Amino acid sequence: MNTSPIRIFSPATVANVACGFDVLGFCLNHPGDEISMRLIPETVIRIINKTHFLIPTEPHKNTLGVSLQAFLNALNYRESGFEIIIEKKIMPGSGVGSSSASAAASVVGANYLLGNKYSKADLVQYAMQGELAASGAAHADNVAPALLGGFVLIRSYKPLDIVQIPYPADLYAAVVHPQIEVRTEDARRVLKKYVPLKDAITQWGNVGGLIAGLYRGDYELIGRSLEDVIVEPVRSLLIPSYKEVKKTALENGALGCSISGSGPSIFALCRGKEVAEKVAHAMSQKFQESEIENCIYVSAINPKGTIVLN
Amino acid sequence: MNTSPIRIFSPATVANVACGFDVLGFCLNHPGDEISMRLIPETVIRIINKTHFLIPTEPHKNTLGVSLQAFLNALNYRESGFEIIIEKKIMPGSGVGSSSASAAASVVGANYLLGNKYSKADLVQYAMQGELAASGAAHADNVAPALLGGFVLIRSYKPLDIVQIPYPADLYAAVVHPQIEVRTEDARRVLKKYVPLKDAITQWGNVGGLIAGLYRGDYELIGRSLEDVIVEPVRSLLIPSYKEVKKTALENGALGCSISGSGPSIFALCRGKEVAEKVAHAMSQKFQESEIENCIYVSAINPKGTIVLN
Repeated sequence: MNTSPIRIFSPATVANVACGFDVLGFCLNHPGDEISMRLIPETVIRIINKTHFLIPTEPHKNTLGVSLQAFLNALNYRESGFEIIIEKKIMPGSGVGSSSASAAASVVGANYLLGNKYSKADLVQYAMQGELAASGAAHADNVAPALLGGFVLIRSYKPLDIVQIPYPADLYAAVVHPQIEVRTEDARRVLKKYVPLKDAITQWGNVGGLIAGLYRGDYELIGRSLEDVIVEPVRSLLIPSYKEVKKTALENGALGCSISGSGPSIFALCRGKEVAEKVAHAMSQKFQESEIENCIYVSAINPKGTIVLN
Repeated sequence: MNTSPIRIFSPATVANVACGFDVLGFCLNHPGDEISMRLIPETVIRIINKTHFLIPTEPHKNTLGVSLQAFLNALNYRESGFEIIIEKKIMPGSGVGSSSASAAASVVGANYLLGNKYSKADLVQYAMQGELAASGAAHADNVAPALLGGFVLIRSYKPLDIVQIPYPADLYAAVVHPQIEVRTEDARRVLKKYVPLKDAITQWGNVGGLIAGLYRGDYELIGRSLEDVIVEPVRSLLIPSYKEVKKTALENGALGCSISGSGPSIFALCRGKEVAEKVAHAMSQKFQESEIENCIYVSAINPKGTIVLN
């Protein structure tokens, strides 16, 4: 048994992307988690937390452990165990796919250590089990882009149907993470179970427009399509200064701006790095004016997703 | 004043396209309406019906007249009148955009006679006025593809934002029109004003998948995306033998099958003319088994839309 460790990088992601609640997500270059992973003789999953975040290390309570176990169960693999050392940089609860990055990292690592027999697309279903344990819902709009990179559409959950969407090279994301807590359960609870048909029509027109805009490399169409009439109106109430921050993003040249995942992070898509940096700083400044501590990330779309580093 | 007549061909269209209620439509090569149109010295709109369909010839009650008048009002044009002779071949109430074909024909004709100053995209808003008069709702999912041809997404109605979507060359439609009446008002009335959020998510996942499938020329993805969990379940109850006809279409190789517009016509998208012909005949046969008279159309996607013939 080769017990040398491998290192895996797993990036943050932005889910929902305004109009695409539960079906769209894209991958960032940073922030990202790193884990170190190796085979061990005992058939256990041992998790060691080397970050300052409080993370449960019991495998069945940890996203990494749950997704890894789901993968091993599907393989019926019992020949060795795994030791995972976590160096987490994506803050849990920030809304940029922290748990998904963990879930993606452990299945990519295990797949590599066991001979790389599965494609990343195959691994999505196992990473989703980690997401289920972390958030109570087996969504793929973070784990799929975290694994595959790029811009991803989850056309269907049953059966799982993942479509990678091309995007123009100069598309950048500005993300601001205000240091406030929005619990995923709260973000879910404010959603209405029924929505007006006319709003749903607006929403699917925008999903169509966004996909077309990404294919065409039509930044204006992308911008016009980044509109959410269903989820943002209720969830944005959970984020102080949301309206002002969004207004600032648009005034500074963002194509569009909305909540990243279930928040509290806010993302803006921009044409070019320069605009994205300007937008990120303006959003940050606006939060600071309300005395809300925050941090910002500016990133192109990450085409690779989760990777083994060595 | 040149009073020579021009002839205009205006094709049938399929709106909604399963998942894209109110936002998607495509254009057929046939059936299609022909109108003859010329300038006349009196500043009136004179409509002459040369078909066996009962069509009101008062301009304000006729789709052609209403859309033409909307166009002339916007231009503030009062220098001459128009004589329109209708040779309608698309049966009113069949669900393949009969009123939209009329609306498109008159604005394209008038624009041509007045010097072709406007693009077809500019004309959509006026044709929509004709649609409003005919159906009580100013929808564009028939008039836009009727005017522009091809596969069309109405991303937004306010403001009107029309996006033409490319499609693979071998995409064919099989359409069967059962000779039963489904009133547009009834088809509208069965719709619920509120829909479950989870169904809306399924629907916008499919809209995204269909647009991506059309761009990629991925027939399988197009087929998987042709699913309507919101409108078809209720509207299909208005069409006798719907389930059996759809089942037959899929069994005979259709990529997907759903209601055309508000029905009663049913369309299937197919890869290749041969498959589409087989599917059309199978759907027709199934209606005949229930003693429902019907007619069928097999057509590639029409890339041109409404055209002046001479």
